[in-house]
Parts: sequence; structure tokens; C-alpha cells
Amino acid sequence: MKSDKIEFFRESEDIFLRHLSVDCVIFGVFGQTLKVLALKWKDNWPWAIPGGFVRHNESLDAAAARAVLERLGILSTTLVQVHAFGDPGREVGKASLVVSEKPSWMDDRFVSVCYYGVVKPTNLELQVEDMFEKAEWFEPDSLPALIFDHASMVSAALAALRDSLFQRPFGKGLLPPTFALTDLQQLYETILDKPLDTNRFQQWITTADLLRPAPEASGQYRFNDAKYAARAIRPF
Amino acid sequence: MKSDKIEFFRESEDIFLRHLSVDCVIFGVFGQTLKVLALKWKDNWPWAIPGGFVRHNESLDAAAARAVLERLGILSTTLVQVHAFGDPGREVGKASLVVSEKPSWMDDRFVSVCYYGVVKPTNLELQVEDMFEKAEWFEPDSLPALIFDHASMVSAALAALRDSLFQRPFGKGLLPPTFALTDLQQLYETILDKPLDTNRFQQWITTADLLRPAPEASGQYRFNDAKYAARAIRPF
Repeated sequence: MKSDKIEFFRESEDIFLRHLSVDCVIFGVFGQTLKVLALKWKDNWPWAIPGGFVRHNESLDAAAARAVLERLGILSTTLVQVHAFGDPGREVGKASLVVSEKPSWMDDRFVSVCYYGVVKPTNLELQVEDMFEKAEWFEPDSLPALIFDHASMVSAALAALRDSLFQRPFGKGLLPPTFALTDLQQLYETILDKPLDTNRFQQWITTADLLRPAPEASGQYRFNDAKYAARAIRPF
Repeated sequence: MKSDKIEFFRESEDIFLRHLSVDCVIFGVFGQTLKVLALKWKDNWPWAIPGGFVRHNESLDAAAARAVLERLGILSTTLVQVHAFGDPGREVGKASLVVSEKPSWMDDRFVSVCYYGVVKPTNLELQVEDMFEKAEWFEPDSLPALIFDHASMVSAALAALRDSLFQRPFGKGLLPPTFALTDLQQLYETILDKPLDTNRFQQWITTADLLRPAPEASGQYRFNDAKYAARAIRPF
């Protein structure tokens, strides 16, 4: 194993909680295509989603945010917790990666808490950490083979993101401050990867009272901030 | 500290993963009232929801099921993962509980993965583990003070259960095999703790195609098994 990884894992032993990691599915909206960010480790190690460990005095949420910052230089993404992946066999093939030359905390089983975030990739300049060869965006069904259960994490995160579209207001930060109804519908269609019936979509948006007409332009809307802050959109 | 607890915590050190616990919010439907199960520790320890630790070779899901079985004798409940609670300050007051006479793994910080289950309390005979004085059902807003962040776990589990009513089919095991539409509406009202508009409820159920008329009795329904197995109910 290369010395930079050895150094990282040796350092880590005193700093982080044992058995626990975080992994983050970063979605990017590229026009009408949803993509997922994957990292290629150096030294013929496999592809992975960005992840890391939890410091002794750090919250899970902060650990996930730090992982995304350290691996990719992405600072300001809202991360949503999806699921804790805790099957004892989840780290398939770990032994063959030869993490360390002597027994180490890295050989132990890890439970990993998965998060997702959605970014607008325009002007996002990725700063990939030294341990990795590169970062690339992939459509969810064209991802390369991912380490451990990271493919299951991507599936679970995508299902949670899609569910969230109908449970909570969505779109701030991904749309301009004022937008047309068709812009919001297109964002939904991109994430759901299917066309939606315009009448039903607009009826649902109207019932949920999510938008306000923008005073400066006809046919343009803004999010209704009071509704946007509320937790749940319910059908009745 | 009483010897049974000392024995339990001494035994635990080699058996369980460090830093990790599971906690379970068990909801019971009592007629038209939803209640939550809480356990009172012996020796003036506080109330808590049932929880436990994760064996070295055990999945999180299995650990949660085992916790509910060992603490309460409840065997067959479907548990749903809610959230991993990972703030470093979540175990408020832990030091004052004097868990052990010398430094122990129990003094460490724990990240806890919360689950919920919904049971029909009829004929449910609780077998409360020796370390506890008793188990009692409480309405969610009448719970006694709970240990650590267990009140936040109950709130999060209740929100997740309520969300799930509109995302996935719900009611099997809580209703008889055939039931009237009003029985299902009443179950929803009990969990949501509010009356629902009958027309809108029936329209939503019809659109979601969740039910089939029961051939043996007019006005009675069964769940549509194919739809029940599908993951998501979507508004469009």
C-alpha cells in the first residue's frame, strides 16, 4: 500500500470512533439529466462514493459534511440522512484491498450511515483529495462497479430523494429565485426520470400551496417561504 | 449499582460493537388511541424506550429485533429504521447514572440507530426483562421524562410513521383480513390524531388502488396484495 494511505489510516486510529463511517451520495442536476458523483481511488482501488469517519466529538451530520468537503472541496450542500447500513457482510472484498500491513482498526467491521445531497454542478469546481485519482459524474444506471454496498446506498438515496419530492418542498438552490411552473415540472421529471402529466402536476402544486406569483413577471413564480419551511406535504 | 446491571455491562464488553446502540419506538393501536411503550429501569433509573447493543456479527436490523424480544418478549414485529442519532451530546445525564464503578465501554459516547414498530396490543403479553421495573403504554404527549434523546426518537418515529401512511400501503396486521373503508380511515385518523375528510380519503384510496372488494360481504374490502407489495404510493 502506498505511504499516503498508510499515513492516513495510522493517523485515523486515535481520531475516529471505531466501527462507524459515513458515506454520501452527491446528486447533480445537469440540464435534464440526474447524475451521481463517484471517486476513483488511486493504486487500482475501486470506485466509491465519498465517505469518511466520525471524530470522537463530532456529530454524524458534521462528519458527513466534512467528508464531502475533504474529499471533493464541496462546502455548502444540505445533506439528508438516508439510512444506516449495518449488515455484517456489507464490506465485500475488504480483505483483498490490503488496507494495512498489520492488524488495524480498518480491518474491523464498519456500520455506515448514508446521506445524500443535491447540487447544481454549474460552476462547482471539484477539488479531489490526493488519495483519489479522479472524481466523475455518472448517470445512476451507468455507474462503474462501486466498493462494498455503495451501489445499494445510491439506490436507497435515489429512492429517498424521489420520495422526498412528494413529502417536502423541493427546488430551492436548484432553480433561479423566480421560475415558470414548467421549470419546476422539468426538475421533478429529471429526478423522477419520467414525464409527468402537466395538469396533475400543476393541480398538485396548487393544492400544496407551494408557490406564489412573482410580482415582477407574469407566468413566473417564487416558492412560498412559509410553506417551504413546513415539514410535510400531505394529500389530505 | 446493583449486581445484575454490573454483570450485564461486564458481559457486554466483549460481545458488542463499541459506540453503537439501537433503540426502538413501539407503537400500539388501542381502539382509537395510539400509544408508545416505555420501560422503567430499576433502582431509580429513568424511563426509556427499549434498546440494546449490536453483536459483532449481527446486523442492525437483527439487533433491533433482538432488543425488543429480550426487553419485552415481543417476537414478531416489523421494525422500520428511522434515523441514526449521532450528536455527541445526545446522552445527557449519562455520567450521573453511575453506569460502572471503574471506567468502562459504557462511558463512551454512543451513536444510536432508532427503529419503530406498530403492534396490535390485544393479546400481547409483555415479558419485561429483569433489569426493568415495568413497561407501560403512554400516549405520545403524556410520556414521562425519557432518558437521553429518547423523546426526540419518539417524535422522529411518529413523524416517520405518519409520513409512511401516504407513501406505502399500511394496515395489514392491524386490521382484520376484511374490513370496511371506515375501519381503514379510523386507523389513519388514530395514527394522525385528527379527523379526515371521508370523501378525500376514499378518493385517495381509490386512486392508489390499494383495496379490492371482499367477495364474501358487501361493503367489505381486502388489501390488493400486488399493490401492497409495491414500494411507493405517488400522487401522480
